[in-house]
Amino acid sequence: MKIVESLPRGIIPYLPTALTQSGELDRDAMRRLVDRLLRAGVAGLSPLGSTGELPALADDVADSVVASVVEAVGGAVPVIPGVLSGSTGHAADRSSAVTALGASAIVAMIRPWGRVSQAAMIEYFSAMAGATDLPVVLYRQPALGVQPDLGSVVRLGDVENIIAVKDASSDTGFLLSLQCEGSSLEIYSASSHVPMLVWEMGGIGWMGGPCCLAPQTSVAMWQFRLAGDRDSAWRLQRGLWPLCRAFAAFGPAPMVKGGLAQIGFDVGAPVAPQATLSREGHAAVGCSIDAVRRARADLGMDMSVL
Amino acid sequence: MKIVESLPRGIIPYLPTALTQSGELDRDAMRRLVDRLLRAGVAGLSPLGSTGELPALADDVADSVVASVVEAVGGAVPVIPGVLSGSTGHAADRSSAVTALGASAIVAMIRPWGRVSQAAMIEYFSAMAGATDLPVVLYRQPALGVQPDLGSVVRLGDVENIIAVKDASSDTGFLLSLQCEGSSLEIYSASSHVPMLVWEMGGIGWMGGPCCLAPQTSVAMWQFRLAGDRDSAWRLQRGLWPLCRAFAAFGPAPMVKGGLAQIGFDVGAPVAPQATLSREGHAAVGCSIDAVRRARADLGMDMSVL
Amino acid sequence: MKIVESLPRGIIPYLPTALTQSGELDRDAMRRLVDRLLRAGVAGLSPLGSTGELPALADDVADSVVASVVEAVGGAVPVIPGVLSGSTGHAADRSSAVTALGASAIVAMIRPWGRVSQAAMIEYFSAMAGATDLPVVLYRQPALGVQPDLGSVVRLGDVENIIAVKDASSDTGFLLSLQCEGSSLEIYSASSHVPMLVWEMGGIGWMGGPCCLAPQTSVAMWQFRLAGDRDSAWRLQRGLWPLCRAFAAFGPAPMVKGGLAQIGFDVGAPVAPQATLSREGHAAVGCSIDAVRRARADLGMDMSVL
Amino acid sequence: MKIVESLPRGIIPYLPTALTQSGELDRDAMRRLVDRLLRAGVAGLSPLGSTGELPALADDVADSVVASVVEAVGGAVPVIPGVLSGSTGHAADRSSAVTALGASAIVAMIRPWGRVSQAAMIEYFSAMAGATDLPVVLYRQPALGVQPDLGSVVRLGDVENIIAVKDASSDTGFLLSLQCEGSSLEIYSASSHVPMLVWEMGGIGWMGGPCCLAPQTSVAMWQFRLAGDRDSAWRLQRGLWPLCRAFAAFGPAPMVKGGLAQIGFDVGAPVAPQATLSREGHAAVGCSIDAVRRARADLGMDMSVL
Repeated sequence: MKIVESLPRGIIPYLPTALTQSGELDRDAMRRLVDRLLRAGVAGLSPLGSTGELPALADDVADSVVASVVEAVGGAVPVIPGVLSGSTGHAADRSSAVTALGASAIVAMIRPWGRVSQAAMIEYFSAMAGATDLPVVLYRQPALGVQPDLGSVVRLGDVENIIAVKDASSDTGFLLSLQCEGSSLEIYSASSHVPMLVWEMGGIGWMGGPCCLAPQTSVAMWQFRLAGDRDSAWRLQRGLWPLCRAFAAFGPAPMVKGGLAQIGFDVGAPVAPQATLSREGHAAVGCSIDAVRRARADLGMDMSVL
Repeated sequence: MKIVESLPRGIIPYLPTALTQSGELDRDAMRRLVDRLLRAGVAGLSPLGSTGELPALADDVADSVVASVVEAVGGAVPVIPGVLSGSTGHAADRSSAVTALGASAIVAMIRPWGRVSQAAMIEYFSAMAGATDLPVVLYRQPALGVQPDLGSVVRLGDVENIIAVKDASSDTGFLLSLQCEGSSLEIYSASSHVPMLVWEMGGIGWMGGPCCLAPQTSVAMWQFRLAGDRDSAWRLQRGLWPLCRAFAAFGPAPMVKGGLAQIGFDVGAPVAPQATLSREGHAAVGCSIDAVRRARADLGMDMSVL
Repeated sequence: MKIVESLPRGIIPYLPTALTQSGELDRDAMRRLVDRLLRAGVAGLSPLGSTGELPALADDVADSVVASVVEAVGGAVPVIPGVLSGSTGHAADRSSAVTALGASAIVAMIRPWGRVSQAAMIEYFSAMAGATDLPVVLYRQPALGVQPDLGSVVRLGDVENIIAVKDASSDTGFLLSLQCEGSSLEIYSASSHVPMLVWEMGGIGWMGGPCCLAPQTSVAMWQFRLAGDRDSAWRLQRGLWPLCRAFAAFGPAPMVKGGLAQIGFDVGAPVAPQATLSREGHAAVGCSIDAVRRARADLGMDMSVL
Repeated sequence: MKIVESLPRGIIPYLPTALTQSGELDRDAMRRLVDRLLRAGVAGLSPLGSTGELPALADDVADSVVASVVEAVGGAVPVIPGVLSGSTGHAADRSSAVTALGASAIVAMIRPWGRVSQAAMIEYFSAMAGATDLPVVLYRQPALGVQPDLGSVVRLGDVENIIAVKDASSDTGFLLSLQCEGSSLEIYSASSHVPMLVWEMGGIGWMGGPCCLAPQTSVAMWQFRLAGDRDSAWRLQRGLWPLCRAFAAFGPAPMVKGGLAQIGFDVGAPVAPQATLSREGHAAVGCSIDAVRRARADLGMDMSVL
């Protein structure tokens, strides 16, 4: 039987990787950000996703990020780092490495290159899962190249410790297809889906970069939904959606790093050559934050937080 | 003020264009199909969509299809034909022509070719709407080429008789984005979205080819939803979803024509060079129909219909 | 044995479809354009391609175009109109219709829609060839959707009156692949390839919209090449290439119609919703024409023509 | 003034990275392969391209590859390794590292991720060039994601030690566009272009994985061309083209590693999850090698080599 209970339910923000101007990990900024999110009531934290710029980080920097987040969290909630590679052997090594650093689960990704069959992808993710005894969240991210197809995801659901899936296409019907295939994988919403709709189908939470900017509102949406207050939850969902659109339009790291700077959290710039948030991007994020605030005001919620 | 009440709410099947072996319109087959759907309680009927193979039909054949469906329906429900062109002038002429033939509303589509700006697209759809006093459903169908973007759809919502939108991308968040932009356009679900999720956001029905194969179940899903019985509605939704996947996998006309043949309604083959449903397609449709039947059985529904 | 000699060798400009402001065919403008091109020494003329906006024309307008060009040419060179459809039956009818109007050969195109197999594509083109006894030039145009693949083109080469191919991808190696497969099809260069390179592999001419703007220079390039003066031919090729880039960047009809207007030939605007050449496009065409003139000047050629 | 003479002219094979079953660099296999290629008269050698599976190699393995090839070559010809990253800082570090290991020039590539502007790409490549005093070959490889566009390539040509470009699109006209823009960059053919055509435009050689399998024939084609014997060169080009098609169809590393195994050089399998050459791939490579042999026989060349 699968140890579903070991994965958190609720809001799980992706963390940006805070860097100093000289390109070092900014542990203080990471700690401040973690503290803010824990106070907001998030269910878990996920460093080293797209928001965390994992494809641009060397292994040793990635290790420092995990260690620093695990330390800052101090066991308060699960830490679920991303693991990514283009080589099966390296992916397994990385899975093992973050396990040793105190992760509670891993988000398994592939950035394929060249000719990769679905069979080889199944082997890749199985190797990652086999290199850890932690629960694994399978992450389909089309922006990284060819990903496991529906049949492969269903088969990977048979691996003992692969117990959830997150899909970053915008095709919400894919998730229903997975359920129709009889998969027992739990589902997290990504920011390219509407979390309220994914939850309508049984989803157990939202793993997303935008939650990092509006954690209290994200948590409140989840709690209204849990309490059966669909109407209030939808009002917050509508208030949060522009943030998700800005996230898609301007890119995870530029948007989250730029947005945090706008609300007073300096976590540095994205790693070059990735863009810093443009003036247009800052304007869009500003409008999105206003939409969150209007939704909170409509519901008479605390206006001192987001 | 918009005349929203003039558009039907509920299940609106797309009709295939029944053709004899010599390529003539098969009016008898059209009539039998219309009768079956009316008995199932559909809210309207839409000939000349992708399922109706509009891009492969000459104008005079398209006219015969509309006339034949209007006659067969006899005023029982609205008839909402598709109108499609690659030329603004021709599109307006076609809009006017189907109005004269007794349509109740039109589904406006574009199949662009060459360089077409968003401004020119807005003019195109405005010309179509201006050539009729019927309500217009704007249809975004990416399979036909570049389509109006979010901003253009919002602007087209200002045209007096454009009162609804249907989107055939699989990006359900696009519909929420439209609402967040303040658009007052009503939304119909397409078969590439999960109707229950579109309705969760306020959608007013489902325009789809698969409804043609399982009309009673589609109508029952809508009615359960209206009555507040989400659980039963979702059971039917899960039972219907494999039909939508087969529709996407094998193509509107091949799948609907092949599927109808499987359940005893011969409406002829698709217009060459489009494929006739393959053996693999027939197997997939067969499994999908079984899924509908299982869902009906679970809810103790009448098993003599689909 | 194939009647290769029936196809012209050399420069074959695509003709725009001249339209009056009220959308009628402008026969005078067509005649003036034909006269200009004949005086330049072109080997043939091709109405109803992408430059001729065939996808936006009704069948009766297309027929008028062919009749008007055949009349204006008066037998001086072959007239090779494009024929295009999305239905096999209609394509064969159109092939037959332009034959009856006095065409010397046809350029066969497909604009597929929905699910079309390679086998069905072979049937489509075979039906077109079977409906005429004229020589057929098979045209692969990826901008129109899925096209016959290498194997299908090779097989279509076995049809008696399909005797040449034109490919509008930019993949010049595709043409060499065709030869390596042992195909006996003659090859025309399209404007997305570099004509001098296609001729290096044995190509028999250039069918292109840009030749319409610089016919004398195009003909001179061909003649230098025939005479073995590679150096002069390459100088003209380099002078002509910016026109081909503008053609690709701004679209066949907008670029050719806008460019002709710039040099004093008014053939009207493209059919809406297709764009009229933008200010930026006019600037690019202007620079391209300057490049042609510089190449002519370098070789001491007549500067009163293009 | 640019030090064009520092780059070799002629055939420059890409080297696969030979690995033992346990995943270690197989220095013996590398040495045997280098010896074979040097005996064939190649002008240079390029480890760490797509054929060399650079995206799947850790930095220390990549360093071993360069060191091992530099040692095996012993100064006989230039060694021009690929350098690739997704981070500007890391790219500069890698450029510096391979310089220290004895490379003669570098092939600079980008594998972008997230939002990367053309301006940031120019900075990326400039940083790589600035970190070495070696000549730099700019490599556009669309399979790695968004690449520098025409304008960026032209501007990068102003960097002092960027002196050549290689483009792996199949759009041969792109190279002519570059020349028409006045760029002074030298051009190498990639295997997605027809080398004889690129040389027709002034190209100075062929950098390609397929040369690794048929080095003598590739060198002979270059020499016939240099000697002005176009006919013999074209016969070899036609004999070599099927190898290039198999390379494109089955992927650089699978095809070159599988092909070398077929002719008796075991360099191990590609790094998982990339595929090992399939049975179909082996058949295609076999046919391609036969085509090379037939071309050699036709010209009465030595049949004991490829």
